Amino acid sequence: MDVFTLDMFFSPESVAVVGASRNPTKLGYGVLHNIIQYGYPGRVYPINPKADEVLGQPAYPSILDVPDPVELAVIVVPARYVASVLEECGQKGVKGAIIISAGFREVGREGKRMEKELVDIARRYSMRLIGPNVLGVIDTIGRLNASFAMGMPRQGTIAFMSQSGALCTAVLDMALAEGVGFSHFVSLGNKADTNEIDFLEAWCDDPHTRVIVAYLEGIVDGARFMDVARQVTRHKPIVAIKSGTTSAGSRAVSSHTGTLAGSERAYDAAFNQVGIIRARSVEDLFDYSIAFARQPLLTNDRIAVVTNAGGPGIMAADAIERAGLQLASLEPETQHLLKEKLPAAASAANPIDVLGDALADRYKLAVNAALNDPNVGGVIVILTPQVITPIEETARAVGEAASQHDKPIMACFMGEATVGAGVDILNEMKVPNYRVPERAVAALAAMSRYRQWREQPPLEIKRFHVNDEKVQEILDRVREEGRVTIGDAEAREIQQAYGIPMPDSVLASTAEKAVAAAEQIGYPVVMKIASPDILHKTDIGGVKLNLNSPEDVRDAFDLLVFRATRHMPDAEIWGCLVQQQVRGGKEIILGMSRDPQFGPLLLFGLGGIYVEALKDVTFRVAPIDEREAGDMISEIRAYSLLRGVRGEAPSDMQAIVDTLLRVSQLVTDFPEIAELDINPLIVFERGKGVLGIDMRLVLG
Amino acid sequence: MDVFTLDMFFSPESVAVVGASRNPTKLGYGVLHNIIQYGYPGRVYPINPKADEVLGQPAYPSILDVPDPVELAVIVVPARYVASVLEECGQKGVKGAIIISAGFREVGREGKRMEKELVDIARRYSMRLIGPNVLGVIDTIGRLNASFAMGMPRQGTIAFMSQSGALCTAVLDMALAEGVGFSHFVSLGNKADTNEIDFLEAWCDDPHTRVIVAYLEGIVDGARFMDVARQVTRHKPIVAIKSGTTSAGSRAVSSHTGTLAGSERAYDAAFNQVGIIRARSVEDLFDYSIAFARQPLLTNDRIAVVTNAGGPGIMAADAIERAGLQLASLEPETQHLLKEKLPAAASAANPIDVLGDALADRYKLAVNAALNDPNVGGVIVILTPQVITPIEETARAVGEAASQHDKPIMACFMGEATVGAGVDILNEMKVPNYRVPERAVAALAAMSRYRQWREQPPLEIKRFHVNDEKVQEILDRVREEGRVTIGDAEAREIQQAYGIPMPDSVLASTAEKAVAAAEQIGYPVVMKIASPDILHKTDIGGVKLNLNSPEDVRDAFDLLVFRATRHMPDAEIWGCLVQQQVRGGKEIILGMSRDPQFGPLLLFGLGGIYVEALKDVTFRVAPIDEREAGDMISEIRAYSLLRGVRGEAPSDMQAIVDTLLRVSQLVTDFPEIAELDINPLIVFERGKGVLGIDMRLVLG
Repeated sequence: MDVFTLDMFFSPESVAVVGASRNPTKLGYGVLHNIIQYGYPGRVYPINPKADEVLGQPAYPSILDVPDPVELAVIVVPARYVASVLEECGQKGVKGAIIISAGFREVGREGKRMEKELVDIARRYSMRLIGPNVLGVIDTIGRLNASFAMGMPRQGTIAFMSQSGALCTAVLDMALAEGVGFSHFVSLGNKADTNEIDFLEAWCDDPHTRVIVAYLEGIVDGARFMDVARQVTRHKPIVAIKSGTTSAGSRAVSSHTGTLAGSERAYDAAFNQVGIIRARSVEDLFDYSIAFARQPLLTNDRIAVVTNAGGPGIMAADAIERAGLQLASLEPETQHLLKEKLPAAASAANPIDVLGDALADRYKLAVNAALNDPNVGGVIVILTPQVITPIEETARAVGEAASQHDKPIMACFMGEATVGAGVDILNEMKVPNYRVPERAVAALAAMSRYRQWREQPPLEIKRFHVNDEKVQEILDRVREEGRVTIGDAEAREIQQAYGIPMPDSVLASTAEKAVAAAEQIGYPVVMKIASPDILHKTDIGGVKLNLNSPEDVRDAFDLLVFRATRHMPDAEIWGCLVQQQVRGGKEIILGMSRDPQFGPLLLFGLGGIYVEALKDVTFRVAPIDEREAGDMISEIRAYSLLRGVRGEAPSDMQAIVDTLLRVSQLVTDFPEIAELDINPLIVFERGKGVLGIDMRLVLG
Repeated sequence: MDVFTLDMFFSPESVAVVGASRNPTKLGYGVLHNIIQYGYPGRVYPINPKADEVLGQPAYPSILDVPDPVELAVIVVPARYVASVLEECGQKGVKGAIIISAGFREVGREGKRMEKELVDIARRYSMRLIGPNVLGVIDTIGRLNASFAMGMPRQGTIAFMSQSGALCTAVLDMALAEGVGFSHFVSLGNKADTNEIDFLEAWCDDPHTRVIVAYLEGIVDGARFMDVARQVTRHKPIVAIKSGTTSAGSRAVSSHTGTLAGSERAYDAAFNQVGIIRARSVEDLFDYSIAFARQPLLTNDRIAVVTNAGGPGIMAADAIERAGLQLASLEPETQHLLKEKLPAAASAANPIDVLGDALADRYKLAVNAALNDPNVGGVIVILTPQVITPIEETARAVGEAASQHDKPIMACFMGEATVGAGVDILNEMKVPNYRVPERAVAALAAMSRYRQWREQPPLEIKRFHVNDEKVQEILDRVREEGRVTIGDAEAREIQQAYGIPMPDSVLASTAEKAVAAAEQIGYPVVMKIASPDILHKTDIGGVKLNLNSPEDVRDAFDLLVFRATRHMPDAEIWGCLVQQQVRGGKEIILGMSRDPQFGPLLLFGLGGIYVEALKDVTFRVAPIDEREAGDMISEIRAYSLLRGVRGEAPSDMQAIVDTLLRVSQLVTDFPEIAELDINPLIVFERGKGVLGIDMRLVLG
């Protein structure tokens, strides 16, 4: 990816710490101390007007006084001084600034204004910013710890970014204790300039990074985030927590950072569409990340379990099934080998039980046998610390097996004190260890989702030939007339312009014209009141079905107009719509609402009670491609009804896909459409198409 | 509860270790060593024919040579010697024996026979057994560690039993590292004599135990287990893992222990019905257990969160909502107090953010304010280790607050190395600590489920006045005739005998009798082929609807009989059933299948596609009471359809409840009924009852 580089934050030639302090209780001390202590190889310049040297380095009153060029500035001064410091940085030719100082957007309106000022200064001097309000940046490749974190993680292949600085400290503390390594570690803070999208781009082709991990509270630009993430996940997995998505959580977000959180469903849809693995807790984040960082991907979803204890083996098998993976059936040769070499009481079927008295040799045999079996996509090795279990030797045997095969191995050495030394060896040998089998399985399930994503063809948006000028004309007119909703006739014109099929229908302004229309369409017909002001026609009795004769049509016309004027005396009434009465088929709903974060969110579901009572619907962010449209249809619970139950013919899926794609194009072409419902869309049996009976559309 | 005591296993006056060894690599050494090392206060007798003393204790060649009485024997000799040792134990007057030796039922048929022999010996001498194939028993109250475990857990209020010995070792190791204490700790092994039910009874009124925790692979007697558990959970919570319930897991069970695992749905239903909290992993088991062991129950489901970091606070709020709990709204006085005493940038709304620079005093203030708020049922305290955070002092403040209030507090000190000392203090002060907010929330959710269970009235099975003799007569006749299924007419007699409403209906053996019946019932009628051999009548075209005239009825009779004989030439044909044609109402299915573990498992759901395509059904083990019947109805996803959507009248719930209870009574009264379906049961609007259209019944 060709992006504006962010290398100045990770491997700068020189760093100035503005606000460097000699007082060990100050952040300005901690940052400088970390830079020096953890072996930054470039030049370091403390900036402090009241000291000649700090921590043994010559200090300067201002960054402008530094005799050499400065590539990166870390700013740790009170908020009110940051702007002038940044101005000086700009004058000095600094390329990037990490603003650790807090007291900006997160404290209110004045802070927001000050933050804006920082961005203006940075733009003026073509500087990039991280922060403000951050813990800092740690880079194990460039050996730069420009943060006030307590400690330096080991080098690894996880690139981590977090919108919460406090979470950074907790994650670092856990990583230090568990030997988890990072390539880059960034606290994003208020994201005044750089944000999650910039780092996704920066790390996409980074050879030091195998997995990108993020804690996010909000996203700056949903559409662009999706574009970039979709490209990144083709190269490497992204694991992310998005917090504040439930209604309770969102309340907390808005009181905390002022970030506008998108709805849970939009995030779920968007993350799924671009292949981001969503984690629900920091533990999940670790569990998935170390799996991706240390092990190859699953070759298939069939898992073998090797264990020295029946109980945990059963629990692993339960978890595998619950997670939608499968317990692998071992090849006859594998079972034969295991039967021959393991004691008689052992289980040569999966889970492979090497028994409580197993030494490392049995583990080695069983793990290698499982890895060599073509039916097996990955292996979980469970060890319980029994009396004679050689924990460290077994760990080494597992590590060696892992290094010799291109399939993932997850260890589950259960216990704590007793298994500790073994777990250290596993970590050293890049085998992820999980405290309980369920977590190992969850990590494999995350791998499986990612593998499936990688196997999908890339997004391929097709454009239909449509009459978008006609739609623009209608929408412009609606807006000129000060309306936000459209009438039936307009809806029909839009449907026609975008090739969304609908029943034969005529707008009749008088009863006699309605009769003429009915004669032309053929009985029976349906009639609906036609008014741009009446959205829910059934609610006011504005629809009549089963009209079989001229008399029926005449009566219906008068009745509908009477009811409409009675209910809404000021409504503009255009007459009645006379429509072919559709028989058979199944009711579907297609809809769109515009999410503040991601834009057009498409909805698909079966109509009527399936939507209202069972809430059996699914979502995607538009534009979608043909595969995604197909996925929407097949992932609702009631999908089997469309496939046909009890000998019914299957519904015309291709016609639904086509309509979904046309709606996707319509709402993408016209961002002014705030909401849209085609309800019902009637789908007939395969080959017989769909008919959009009623379309509702609201402008933003 | 008045039960046969198991005290001999927990606080015996004297213990003999049969198979005590001087060789430290032998289990017989480990067991004796543990008994002596961990301070057992009674007398200990090593039994070893080849030694005069073992570990400093005088040894005896046989238990019969011990000069004093022996209350408990721990047997650690090879399987083939166990029976004779046990025989001697019996002669010696031993009251209980823990058989650590393996090599019995778990290794095959011969082992099973040997195990049976042990039980016979024990019965003969009125001895109780634990095992065989166990880790042993640990009792912190009686200071007895009669196991080969590595270490002795601290004293606590969790009583633990496990069917997997290996899992015991892992749990102990984790407990030792995390300072989790137990009252009693039992490895159940093969459960030849004592099983989970015995220990539930023994610990029900045990003053040292606040929570009973179990790992189970199978249950010995489902109905009795439910009876006992239902009584125990009125006194104290039971937290249990039941493994091997998915199909993959069950396969693993049967290859491992030969335990017949019940189906997942039966276990879920049974555990829910008796108030057992189900854990899905050993981590869950720990998380829930320490919450129950150390903290009072939630007073309501509204949770306050106190945090020094926004991000984790948001994650806690998300998790609270996802778990079905609520983020508490704080009283105005609480918010006022917090606003007054906390810095301006802090959040006085829930989550209460005391900010990154909070010292212990702010935590103390906020936690106490939350606990004093009547809207708050429980509190989660999150701490991230920031630069100046006083971790240990904060832990003490949290512990003190916890000791002064009768509401649960869960801590979440995030990180590892840095927060370790604080976590130790929390453990000491009985505040459970969780690594991530999501786990603290899960523990509170488990508490909430248990609180709801405790608030429910006890089970109250009502008996209807029914004609059970009639049913017995029918079933006897069916069996005498060598059938396992019943015909329509018999089904109708059974429905009538148990007061299950059905449409007017007559069995007609000729076409003319059918016409007469139709005239009497009134048109339209439905006709169905009547044969005890044809179960799925619709599949062979054996049902005709909408018959409006004598001619229709005559034609239908001939047609149905023709089709039946064509499809099943050997079927016994009784004629046709002429039935009132039911109009309106909603289709429901009630059913029962007999679970091998728990017996009659009732099913309830909406009929047709809801059962077949959406699998929207719910289960209970019969007999059920009125509350449980009501719960079945309201917990299906499509419940809103019964309540009435789009202005429809609500369905007659009371009539469904009544029918569920009658079916429950029927299948409880007649264990020979293996399967039963009433499908459809038509429910009409409130006050208008139900009609069971078709009942299918299969004998075992």
